[in-house]
Amino acid sequence: MPKPQVLTPQADDFPRWYQDVIAKAELADNGPVRGTMVIRPDGYAIWERMQAEVDQRIKAVGVRNAYFPLFIPESYLTREAEHVEGFSPELAVVTHGGGKELAEPVVVRPTSETVIGEYIAKWTQSYRDLPLLLNQWANVVRWELRPRLFLRSSEFLWQEGHTAHVSREDAAAFARRIHTEVYRDFMVDVLAMPVLLGAKTAAERFPGAIDTLTCEAMMGDGKALQMGTSHELGQNFAKAFDIRFLDESGSEQLAWTTSWGVSTRMVGGLIMTHGDDRGLRLPPVLAPVQVVVLLVRDGDGVGAAVDRLVDDLEAAGVRVVADTRAELSFGRRVTDWELKGVPVRIEVGPRDLAEGEVTLVRRDTASKEQVGLGGAVATAGKLLEAIQQDLLAEATERRDERTVDVSTVDEVAEAAATGFARIRWDAIGPGDEQRLATDGVTIRCLQRLDGSLPEGDEDELIAIAARSY
Amino acid sequence: MPKPQVLTPQADDFPRWYQDVIAKAELADNGPVRGTMVIRPDGYAIWERMQAEVDQRIKAVGVRNAYFPLFIPESYLTREAEHVEGFSPELAVVTHGGGKELAEPVVVRPTSETVIGEYIAKWTQSYRDLPLLLNQWANVVRWELRPRLFLRSSEFLWQEGHTAHVSREDAAAFARRIHTEVYRDFMVDVLAMPVLLGAKTAAERFPGAIDTLTCEAMMGDGKALQMGTSHELGQNFAKAFDIRFLDESGSEQLAWTTSWGVSTRMVGGLIMTHGDDRGLRLPPVLAPVQVVVLLVRDGDGVGAAVDRLVDDLEAAGVRVVADTRAELSFGRRVTDWELKGVPVRIEVGPRDLAEGEVTLVRRDTASKEQVGLGGAVATAGKLLEAIQQDLLAEATERRDERTVDVSTVDEVAEAAATGFARIRWDAIGPGDEQRLATDGVTIRCLQRLDGSLPEGDEDELIAIAARSY
Repeated sequence: MPKPQVLTPQADDFPRWYQDVIAKAELADNGPVRGTMVIRPDGYAIWERMQAEVDQRIKAVGVRNAYFPLFIPESYLTREAEHVEGFSPELAVVTHGGGKELAEPVVVRPTSETVIGEYIAKWTQSYRDLPLLLNQWANVVRWELRPRLFLRSSEFLWQEGHTAHVSREDAAAFARRIHTEVYRDFMVDVLAMPVLLGAKTAAERFPGAIDTLTCEAMMGDGKALQMGTSHELGQNFAKAFDIRFLDESGSEQLAWTTSWGVSTRMVGGLIMTHGDDRGLRLPPVLAPVQVVVLLVRDGDGVGAAVDRLVDDLEAAGVRVVADTRAELSFGRRVTDWELKGVPVRIEVGPRDLAEGEVTLVRRDTASKEQVGLGGAVATAGKLLEAIQQDLLAEATERRDERTVDVSTVDEVAEAAATGFARIRWDAIGPGDEQRLATDGVTIRCLQRLDGSLPEGDEDELIAIAARSY
Repeated sequence: MPKPQVLTPQADDFPRWYQDVIAKAELADNGPVRGTMVIRPDGYAIWERMQAEVDQRIKAVGVRNAYFPLFIPESYLTREAEHVEGFSPELAVVTHGGGKELAEPVVVRPTSETVIGEYIAKWTQSYRDLPLLLNQWANVVRWELRPRLFLRSSEFLWQEGHTAHVSREDAAAFARRIHTEVYRDFMVDVLAMPVLLGAKTAAERFPGAIDTLTCEAMMGDGKALQMGTSHELGQNFAKAFDIRFLDESGSEQLAWTTSWGVSTRMVGGLIMTHGDDRGLRLPPVLAPVQVVVLLVRDGDGVGAAVDRLVDDLEAAGVRVVADTRAELSFGRRVTDWELKGVPVRIEVGPRDLAEGEVTLVRRDTASKEQVGLGGAVATAGKLLEAIQQDLLAEATERRDERTVDVSTVDEVAEAAATGFARIRWDAIGPGDEQRLATDGVTIRCLQRLDGSLPEGDEDELIAIAARSY
């Protein structure tokens, strides 16, 4: 019996499938002002889990949270030439406040290097004050002409880290540490997403950065998504905001700064990495709900068995909910939990229960397993671990299958139609990046031949090119 | 030997003392745009602890977090007449976005009843969809002419809950539940602040509300601070945003809504409730750092003893940091930890340690206690409990001492010079509220004679009047 189709199949129209999942799984909605987004409770619960995991890792490397204002004087933005050029077209500008026209318009932060730079300068006197390691969880605004829920919205939520260091080496090392110990580890271990780490080309860097590191993921349709970036800002913002310190010998020096961020865009990446034609598939380590215990229909002791199972799972540290809505059809409820991507479903019905058994169903593979009631918690735990590993393996396999080594720019464009193209960086000539861009293909990152992160300028590099979101 | 005075004494100038504490304890700073605020790491850590405690309680009563846009179409605000009148003078207006003048200006949310009302309407079809219980953690903007850090800033951080219900009774009961189980319990049990609960007079209600409940606290100088409010919005926003549902009999009804919020203003309230001339005093349940283990000076095994003690405290679930900066003066470091309000300080020095002892110092009373190293964790735990209780008792005693029963409006103004005035509500005639306001005195709330929350209109009520922040 084929299930009723609630989503456009991925193979028919991937972007349409993406919109369908977001609507049917009740993750988000368009806001009333063009490009803005309403994040619904089931979408926000995913973001809260991401926040908790990232926040813990950020704190573990010694960074402290703070909060800087939403409004930035327009004049701040103009102090760093590349920065203002990069962000001017996307700014939202407040011209009236408190019933009056403002003497100086203020911009709604598109990112906070400028305002945080001003305060880092104020708080930094000596080398003893450095490194200064700050982060904030905040909303930012970049006016979007072609908005797409989670991926590109005029307002989005993110964390932005900002640090100041005594030397270029320290700043570079810290940006790499965030990129690997925080971002990569989180994306691989929690999101089950096998991201590629590399450096952006000069054309793709953050405005004002001397080096931008990126985590690039492959979506279900072979396109790339930038999941997070870490920037070495050199002394550009230190110069613009006068971030100076006295070194150990008592002479004045300019600091070296970094910034780095991940955003609600990761929710979009998660959906497009693991989702299938039945909806979301959430990796268990991330999932706000890891197990749903479904009362199939009422009967002798069924309700009590559901309650006990929920208690036992909770006691074992599992994030669990009960679905006891026996008044709704079983099929409808199953479809709904599949849509929402809950990794493991435990079905408790009167017939199985009479035999002392319950049924565990994996969301990723749809495989079923009957176990004795007493073994359900242990089996659920094993399944959660297996699903986490298998989702990562599946995404890695797809990425590898869809990555092609090529040697000419023409072949790049061809390979990028279905996935990632790898080409030696020295095979890309002047003007080639721009040529590829007309086909919608960009160089997502540069890596060493062995796939590792390059250090500064190196000769032997590989460029990864793709279409992207 | 008197300590060097780092703060203006409270008795000399309480508002100046408040500013001094915020600056010296590095809690916050003024933002570059007038009225905005930079929350520094030590201030933000306090807010993060408040968030965690409130969030947990909000979720425990069944509310789910979501996120709604910062930008609201100007036309939304105007749909509820009292609401737009109340907020218009405080709005920040964005007129330009993406390099162009906008066809319709958008306002930066001063609160989100309007935009959330629009979506609650969209998501509500039948009585089965109600109650709909939503909350968001967000920044809001209300242009402030007389800003004061934490207490009144043009941008502040808060949570705003928004709910819709099938009946007035349900809405009223839920608003009261939030007010007591979430707000009061949090403020009393965590912040150690003995807040008074009552209803606002019609003149002091939220714009658009039919009833506003408030938590009012007395600060160290006898003035009142509104710490949180919960509003019954009746059907005003349901009418304006068409929040309708089919009831059990299939006929269409307008919903009843509530909203409720607490903000970063609570940080200001906490400072002014417990702070003394040496700085902050943080209640242990809230304190981001509950115990500091201070290495007095290096010596045989001192470093190792500090490390072990920190490990043992952590293992006991205590939030602890070590201060091993032996290169800085002991007195300077003690002053600093006192400023920051850490409840318990454990001093580990070579002389005591030779006797197998360490010294525990309470921040609230400055009393010292020497105990054997092995008993330090248990003693710290007992002190933390005692400090929590004693701070609440001290604040309660001050409030009671400074609360006077009076019978005429003239006596109200007099009593409000030093604290709270209690007067029968029926002794306040028409025009009296306005008259008191010219002296800077407002009716903070109405209570029943026994101090409990009134239900709707009642005859036998007491008004609490005070000067306020």
